[in-house]
Amino acid sequence: MNKLRVGIIGATGYVGIELLRLLLTHNEVEVAAISSSSFEGKNITDIYPNLLGYTELKCENTDEVVEKSDLLFLALPHGLSEEIANTAIAKGKKVIDLGADFRLEDENEYEEWYGKKYLYGSLHEKSVYGLCEVNRELIKKSPIIANPGCFPTSIALALTPLLKHKLIKKDGIIIDSKSGVTGAGRGLSLTSHYPESNENISPYKVGGVHRHIPEIEQSLGKAYGEEIRIVFTPHLIPVNRGILSTIYCELNEEVSYEKAYDTLVEAYESEKFVNIVPKGQTASIKSVTLSNNCQISVHFDERANKLILCSVIDNMLKGAAGQAIQNMNIMMGYEENKGLEFLAPAF
Amino acid sequence: MNKLRVGIIGATGYVGIELLRLLLTHNEVEVAAISSSSFEGKNITDIYPNLLGYTELKCENTDEVVEKSDLLFLALPHGLSEEIANTAIAKGKKVIDLGADFRLEDENEYEEWYGKKYLYGSLHEKSVYGLCEVNRELIKKSPIIANPGCFPTSIALALTPLLKHKLIKKDGIIIDSKSGVTGAGRGLSLTSHYPESNENISPYKVGGVHRHIPEIEQSLGKAYGEEIRIVFTPHLIPVNRGILSTIYCELNEEVSYEKAYDTLVEAYESEKFVNIVPKGQTASIKSVTLSNNCQISVHFDERANKLILCSVIDNMLKGAAGQAIQNMNIMMGYEENKGLEFLAPAF
Amino acid sequence: MNKLRVGIIGATGYVGIELLRLLLTHNEVEVAAISSSSFEGKNITDIYPNLLGYTELKCENTDEVVEKSDLLFLALPHGLSEEIANTAIAKGKKVIDLGADFRLEDENEYEEWYGKKYLYGSLHEKSVYGLCEVNRELIKKSPIIANPGCFPTSIALALTPLLKHKLIKKDGIIIDSKSGVTGAGRGLSLTSHYPESNENISPYKVGGVHRHIPEIEQSLGKAYGEEIRIVFTPHLIPVNRGILSTIYCELNEEVSYEKAYDTLVEAYESEKFVNIVPKGQTASIKSVTLSNNCQISVHFDERANKLILCSVIDNMLKGAAGQAIQNMNIMMGYEENKGLEFLAPAF
Amino acid sequence: MNKLRVGIIGATGYVGIELLRLLLTHNEVEVAAISSSSFEGKNITDIYPNLLGYTELKCENTDEVVEKSDLLFLALPHGLSEEIANTAIAKGKKVIDLGADFRLEDENEYEEWYGKKYLYGSLHEKSVYGLCEVNRELIKKSPIIANPGCFPTSIALALTPLLKHKLIKKDGIIIDSKSGVTGAGRGLSLTSHYPESNENISPYKVGGVHRHIPEIEQSLGKAYGEEIRIVFTPHLIPVNRGILSTIYCELNEEVSYEKAYDTLVEAYESEKFVNIVPKGQTASIKSVTLSNNCQISVHFDERANKLILCSVIDNMLKGAAGQAIQNMNIMMGYEENKGLEFLAPAF
Repeated sequence: MNKLRVGIIGATGYVGIELLRLLLTHNEVEVAAISSSSFEGKNITDIYPNLLGYTELKCENTDEVVEKSDLLFLALPHGLSEEIANTAIAKGKKVIDLGADFRLEDENEYEEWYGKKYLYGSLHEKSVYGLCEVNRELIKKSPIIANPGCFPTSIALALTPLLKHKLIKKDGIIIDSKSGVTGAGRGLSLTSHYPESNENISPYKVGGVHRHIPEIEQSLGKAYGEEIRIVFTPHLIPVNRGILSTIYCELNEEVSYEKAYDTLVEAYESEKFVNIVPKGQTASIKSVTLSNNCQISVHFDERANKLILCSVIDNMLKGAAGQAIQNMNIMMGYEENKGLEFLAPAF
Repeated sequence: MNKLRVGIIGATGYVGIELLRLLLTHNEVEVAAISSSSFEGKNITDIYPNLLGYTELKCENTDEVVEKSDLLFLALPHGLSEEIANTAIAKGKKVIDLGADFRLEDENEYEEWYGKKYLYGSLHEKSVYGLCEVNRELIKKSPIIANPGCFPTSIALALTPLLKHKLIKKDGIIIDSKSGVTGAGRGLSLTSHYPESNENISPYKVGGVHRHIPEIEQSLGKAYGEEIRIVFTPHLIPVNRGILSTIYCELNEEVSYEKAYDTLVEAYESEKFVNIVPKGQTASIKSVTLSNNCQISVHFDERANKLILCSVIDNMLKGAAGQAIQNMNIMMGYEENKGLEFLAPAF
Repeated sequence: MNKLRVGIIGATGYVGIELLRLLLTHNEVEVAAISSSSFEGKNITDIYPNLLGYTELKCENTDEVVEKSDLLFLALPHGLSEEIANTAIAKGKKVIDLGADFRLEDENEYEEWYGKKYLYGSLHEKSVYGLCEVNRELIKKSPIIANPGCFPTSIALALTPLLKHKLIKKDGIIIDSKSGVTGAGRGLSLTSHYPESNENISPYKVGGVHRHIPEIEQSLGKAYGEEIRIVFTPHLIPVNRGILSTIYCELNEEVSYEKAYDTLVEAYESEKFVNIVPKGQTASIKSVTLSNNCQISVHFDERANKLILCSVIDNMLKGAAGQAIQNMNIMMGYEENKGLEFLAPAF
Repeated sequence: MNKLRVGIIGATGYVGIELLRLLLTHNEVEVAAISSSSFEGKNITDIYPNLLGYTELKCENTDEVVEKSDLLFLALPHGLSEEIANTAIAKGKKVIDLGADFRLEDENEYEEWYGKKYLYGSLHEKSVYGLCEVNRELIKKSPIIANPGCFPTSIALALTPLLKHKLIKKDGIIIDSKSGVTGAGRGLSLTSHYPESNENISPYKVGGVHRHIPEIEQSLGKAYGEEIRIVFTPHLIPVNRGILSTIYCELNEEVSYEKAYDTLVEAYESEKFVNIVPKGQTASIKSVTLSNNCQISVHFDERANKLILCSVIDNMLKGAAGQAIQNMNIMMGYEENKGLEFLAPAF
């Protein structure tokens, strides 16, 4: 059987190289070509020596990659994907966009948070928000997948079943998230300069200004059936990988902790990549980093009547490249965990 | 002039050795003696080679240290201080307790959270909660100081002025705190085992069960004049030192962000160790670790109408040994920053 | 086709759990049973939540595991493997020992460094030192494999081709090695206590006293055909995984740097797991951690006439569990990289 | 008494800001002015919030700082100090240069390693290499101090007494050094990008090409009285601060380990900042980071007849800003540890 020819646009960024690493051992696909605007013409192993001996790919330009591929992963800064997706779709290719261009369904929201309008409105009608466990059936039929953001994935997986069944109040949800430094990418900045981030923790974009907010609210609102407004504070922590979202919300009257817990367990009992941690245990990022898994622990503060959820993922895998490959597997009818079978190391 | 003879009970734990390090260069005092139950008779430099060349102190037993000292620092696990304090006070010595034995004023609360009653009720009447910036005048007159816990210090400094002036609502306060690993002390445990805490972040005691909760609520309730109930979730982060408390609360009607900000600035403008970060900037632990400082940044989320405070301290200094020395300075009438003049390194 | 039934003795130590993680996704084998002396009867996922959802194995006792398995991995402290291996071999099973019991061929050396004699001399005659790239043919035929130590693997892979071809002098070899903290295992100790190893680097067992020395000298001596004596200093560095050995040696007269470099390239050009880094580049552990790869960079100091080799592996994979699985693959005739296809992440 | 007016040229780099932090609490001096080419006109606390509340200094230009100061610290990239030093000396000011411009006494060496000639040869005649414990008497009389490099300091302190007394052979010295990331400064680079240096160790400039080599050889050669050639390999380790140099050398015939050990102890017994670690213990960086101390442990490998020295310092303090202040104290006749009294934290 012929392998699927896949291409990566933006292969030398952190998301791109993580995609390449995984796709090189995915046995249904062949990485046909990769592009990089900064390193065109260079061997990828000269930039990433971890792949030495495993590939001889060189960085090409975008057009070449589009041409050679059946399915394209776009791992680009926000705003650069629409144009390429339009070209690729016109040529009958499939597209998985790991940026934000297709994530927001409301053009006004997109304009408000990203400062620009859609270039190709009809493309957006064809696209689906690729939160695999929630939108699996739509993903199967769509040629363009908007791969979810890292924070939104950790949050929507924890809250969707509770909101859908109206077990928690839609108001007053507070989310305190912590992310590893790879979330900021390979671009150099003082924030990611080792002596500044090592032995540090820093909140950032405090006060309702992070661009993942509309995406999170879109997912939660859809689950609940009404608009939802959240408080969201991201923090940078000194680890390479991993996101922990600590989520504070309130149970509806007559809803018990057990009911909430059981609903989450049921929602994910047939899912390979989402696990509800046994009662009494607490999720931590080490249990999921370097895997495509999400783990969620569920806690109740009786004194204050709050439900507290701790949801953990690897920001580069379930929060980016891993979920993108899961999306490809769903689109193509492969086993959903193909190429993602590796388990999280204990350390 | 004669120097004050100080003693450290429990000198080989992390808090004890941090006290010793600082006291050895405090020029109003002489470290008369130190004790350690595990290392009696040993040179402190055999256990802590960082002090090599700077002291020849040996670990003695508790009685010897009490005898030789005018003022005692007790750096012991909870429950061991009351007995020693009683003896010391009877001999006319002063006591600064860095454990929890004297922190809670309500014996019932103490029993509820620590599972035991006071041994010497009258001692508790003589003791003062040593949050320096709040209780300075009482500290001057008291022979026993209950040195505050690390999380409570970071939280009470941020919220006290706002609660005292009734600028924020007393209900719905949510505190998401992050602490470095030294907070767990020198005792060996899997939690502090390097491969388990490195590249990890883990929430713990989620759901209203951490023993700092009654201490935090006592401080906040006193400031407000009514009982207050909070949600508090501590997290362990992979750094040696530092606490960040991200605090979510709601402004009262007709209170502006500016009013809240200015109130905090005024509250601390004559304080050496507390700084309100300029508007638009965000506090992070690196700005205070290895100093006795607290920095607080103030943010407003208009979309959700929440005030967000980021309060940072070094858990071993302003959150333990540093504040204890500040308390000694106040008690003895020394300059308040004596022995604490060092500034936080930039990295 | 029936899968090979494998068992792990000592599954809850760091090497054991790494074996389990890998074997659970190795599609030629089934993990039949695992043992742990400390956790008998417990679910492995209660101890290692990273495996939640991927296995329901419980810890059994050693006898049960031996009984249920065709091939046994022994991941035990030194001195405990011989007895179990003897039983297993008598029952016709194969054994891969990850401890030191079978590594030294000279019983006197073993006694000198480990303080005991062989229990079953004839077992040692059946065993082979499992440095895969060097002893592949012998491994195919042996029922007992002595899986090499982590430091010795990094060193022998770099020096064997040079010694075998007599390109370097046998005298004056100095090896300065650096290892991540997982090398010290899961046992609690101050050395692995987070606040002590974080932001630290510490040499240990300086002065020719580390037990890997006779193993290293055995490998090098065999390659050269004469006894070799080395200087070896291990250091603990604040990372979870990875070993870097910086090796200083001298080229023989009339041997050029190019000759040495080319000899290494040729030695490993058909090997999947060993790569010689291109000239002008320098090996670092990040290129190999979380893979079974070894990378070696080769440098020449003209001023001092020294050849310098930098050899890197993941101490838990090529230095332990990974090489053990590679050994199993060779013994059983599977593809040599089966279950070890994953590539090192870039970060 | 009037305070000494000091100025810092290049105050916003890592060495500059470390100088400022220390000088702000040095009670013999007043920081008169600071300069920064990148941040002229800005408040230093906007760039370094750790100093918030402790200074209101703004960055000025170089001329202003020279004018206002009696003594200048130059914390600049190599090659920029000579011109400024010339101006300052002409105006009767003293200069401590933390760059390399004045470190090498042989202009040919300087040209070979730095690619340029001296601009002002006569200035070099006035300058002294500021290794305090070795050149104290010369430092007292010189208006220009060449503050030693970080690696050279760690190495020269360990080897000088041994070479001076001809206890070790001058040939075959191999030095394997490990440095924290602040050594690379505040300039952004992939090498210092958090996800690349975290969980990594990388050798660099392997093979006799690091610019500290001639400086090291100059110190060692002077101590011995003959030219010395060394092998030197630096490594980057994932810590903010600290240097460990592991040094391999050979005792001369009839020199015992005890003789070497005792010679080192005697050499430094009256020194405040250098300590020889007790026999049987091993130096590690945590014992000295955040202090101006150097600790040296001494080991003997009988099997291979090698003496091994482990020498540790804080690269930013004894390896840069701390030694510079020690030099100022010597020049000005202050107590040598003035402003440097703080002890290394245990964690």
